[in-house]
Amino acid sequence: MKRYEDLSPSLRCIMTPGPVEVDPRVLRAMSFPVLGQFDPEFTGIMNETMEMLRELFATGNQWAYPVDGTSRSGIEAVMVSLIAPGDRVLVPVYGRFGHLLHEIAERCGAEVHTIETGWGSVFEPGEIIAAMKRIRPDVVALVHGETSTGRVQPLAEIGQACREQDALLIVDAVATIGGIPVRTDAWKLDAVVGGTQKCLSVPAGMAPVTYNARAEAKLLKRKRVERGLRGGEVQPGEHSFVRSNYFDLSMLQDYWSPARLNHHTEMTSMLYALREGLRLVLEEGLEARYARHKLHEQALVAGLTAMGLALYGDPDCKLTVVTCVLIPEGIDGEAVRSLLLEHFGIEIASSFGPLKGLIWRIGTMGFSCRENNVLRLLGALEAALQRHGYPVACGRAVQAALDVYEAESG
Amino acid sequence: MKRYEDLSPSLRCIMTPGPVEVDPRVLRAMSFPVLGQFDPEFTGIMNETMEMLRELFATGNQWAYPVDGTSRSGIEAVMVSLIAPGDRVLVPVYGRFGHLLHEIAERCGAEVHTIETGWGSVFEPGEIIAAMKRIRPDVVALVHGETSTGRVQPLAEIGQACREQDALLIVDAVATIGGIPVRTDAWKLDAVVGGTQKCLSVPAGMAPVTYNARAEAKLLKRKRVERGLRGGEVQPGEHSFVRSNYFDLSMLQDYWSPARLNHHTEMTSMLYALREGLRLVLEEGLEARYARHKLHEQALVAGLTAMGLALYGDPDCKLTVVTCVLIPEGIDGEAVRSLLLEHFGIEIASSFGPLKGLIWRIGTMGFSCRENNVLRLLGALEAALQRHGYPVACGRAVQAALDVYEAESG
Repeated sequence: MKRYEDLSPSLRCIMTPGPVEVDPRVLRAMSFPVLGQFDPEFTGIMNETMEMLRELFATGNQWAYPVDGTSRSGIEAVMVSLIAPGDRVLVPVYGRFGHLLHEIAERCGAEVHTIETGWGSVFEPGEIIAAMKRIRPDVVALVHGETSTGRVQPLAEIGQACREQDALLIVDAVATIGGIPVRTDAWKLDAVVGGTQKCLSVPAGMAPVTYNARAEAKLLKRKRVERGLRGGEVQPGEHSFVRSNYFDLSMLQDYWSPARLNHHTEMTSMLYALREGLRLVLEEGLEARYARHKLHEQALVAGLTAMGLALYGDPDCKLTVVTCVLIPEGIDGEAVRSLLLEHFGIEIASSFGPLKGLIWRIGTMGFSCRENNVLRLLGALEAALQRHGYPVACGRAVQAALDVYEAESG
Repeated sequence: MKRYEDLSPSLRCIMTPGPVEVDPRVLRAMSFPVLGQFDPEFTGIMNETMEMLRELFATGNQWAYPVDGTSRSGIEAVMVSLIAPGDRVLVPVYGRFGHLLHEIAERCGAEVHTIETGWGSVFEPGEIIAAMKRIRPDVVALVHGETSTGRVQPLAEIGQACREQDALLIVDAVATIGGIPVRTDAWKLDAVVGGTQKCLSVPAGMAPVTYNARAEAKLLKRKRVERGLRGGEVQPGEHSFVRSNYFDLSMLQDYWSPARLNHHTEMTSMLYALREGLRLVLEEGLEARYARHKLHEQALVAGLTAMGLALYGDPDCKLTVVTCVLIPEGIDGEAVRSLLLEHFGIEIASSFGPLKGLIWRIGTMGFSCRENNVLRLLGALEAALQRHGYPVACGRAVQAALDVYEAESG
């Protein structure tokens, strides 16, 4: 029999747009013994997690709970539950994850309309609103922070326009939740999906979602009780029920409600991790956390610029937590990434589609977003570029970042 | 601000049909720092996990990997990927989870045909084969071990019949994998779904699946490359593509293949847990593990019977890893369960639908399936029944179980 070795993963400095490093408190939480899913101690933990998620999403919504799967499971759950086959859906696309929303909406059977803007920028709210007036969508699906290009789309005016046109606004905040403000209620977002493995710094495996009463009303029209659990309820017609069982939010909310109607078996250890990650977020305080992400971004950008590197994309819509760097002419971006990983234990990311080979993407997210990581990365990247023959302005990057930190503390 | 306490779950003795107790080695594996999803160390762990899953499923299939979600996510992934809208699907139902397969097949847009047999028994293979001849299904979906009733359905003849009729056989082995034999290749099962939180004793959160080349051929006909990652490939027509992105196995297998085509972000810590759980299974040895489950079931049954309790259902098709006990006349089953949990720290399960209030379900699964747990439960249950005024034959249950253990070791 083949022998499989003891697990012994190397310690990495993970400066990608996720998954990022996990706080030791969260790692420890996963090592606690499991409870049964209907054990009152466990349902207590479920309820506390919902409370904390409401704070994170800045919402008074009743429903705020994790979907059991990776981030895109949350996106699919919200979309398949809120988009009925034949619905008109508008997806403004400004990067890879906009294409994903288009893709999922199509698989939901929607009539999908897209508008696109060049990668590296985002939409003026007026462009989206004009498209809404033309298309009269039932649903608008929009990425808040696009990690493929490092851009952030302003949302507040879109939320207001969706109310006026009676469309539902679904927002993919996978990359932004816990790192920059996501103001669900103030911006009138009807459904928001967060991710765990980015600014929350919890391992991939859950997707926190929240949705308001407008979204729930649509959901309840499509509600269907599972065979084997059904009483005499009237079931919805052939074409309106949700096409997924696992992702049917009307069933998930029954499981998360005091009724605890059996659905899946909640992921015990992942929920322990999420609860601990949320505690860390709330102990730090949301606004302090956003300020921390901003500070380390500034230090990173100061260092990269001092080194002689140029940033990608429109600076006016730069996403705080992802910094896209143009790979200098003549440098093999993948060789630099490998050198960083193999010799320095540091991971940065490449990109997708049209940006593949053109930019590196550096994340400053959650637990990974800290001074020693930023300084370590700058020093290592400088050395790696030098090693590859790039005429780097040696010794400046780390000093420039230290200047930012000193100015902040001074 | 509300203060949330340190996580501190009680230590439970979990004798339910899942989730069950987790081996400390698996819990520890989850506390290791995370790696990036494309870090070569991590893709190495992915590959090892696939190798071990092939052994677990007793298959030479190329494809054996976890779906990232709880057990029913694996069931839905296999069904939505292998059942095209309009397909004829036969679901033999002998308990709650057969109804779930019916439910999911309907949501996939299938023309579903069911046959039912009374809860507490299973089908003669001839009954299913006769229905197959009548219905000519494209897919047969069948539960291997039905935890709602504690029954096991023989599969070998059904696999052969599906080959002869060119139907695909999908098997829900969530409750049986790692506890009793699941012989994927020998029984000619086309797609099998396992669960983690039962006989594998890994926390809920992943669903290992395997499928053979017959299943893959159907999958590839429906394959569609994700928008944003697409080259010039021809895409399938309007009605044949898989209705889910997250559960599209043709994309998942590209992610698990050397191509590593980006899809979701693999659940790092859950994969660490699954890998460690599989190592434990293979170190014990599959046949030794099945024998262990059989031994502790015998001891449990001997003890329950000696106590004066009667078992539910047809003994010829009893599922080794779940023992259903009739709640004695006049005893409040939920009050006994609460007493066991609150005073003894032991959890057993109630049941669903027509069996609610009539039976208790006791699991002997994975790490929970051990001598000290069986003896502890028997002693506690005896005391709880006595406390509730049931004329229990005191002192006999534990002795009867010890007799079984002594006979085995002698």
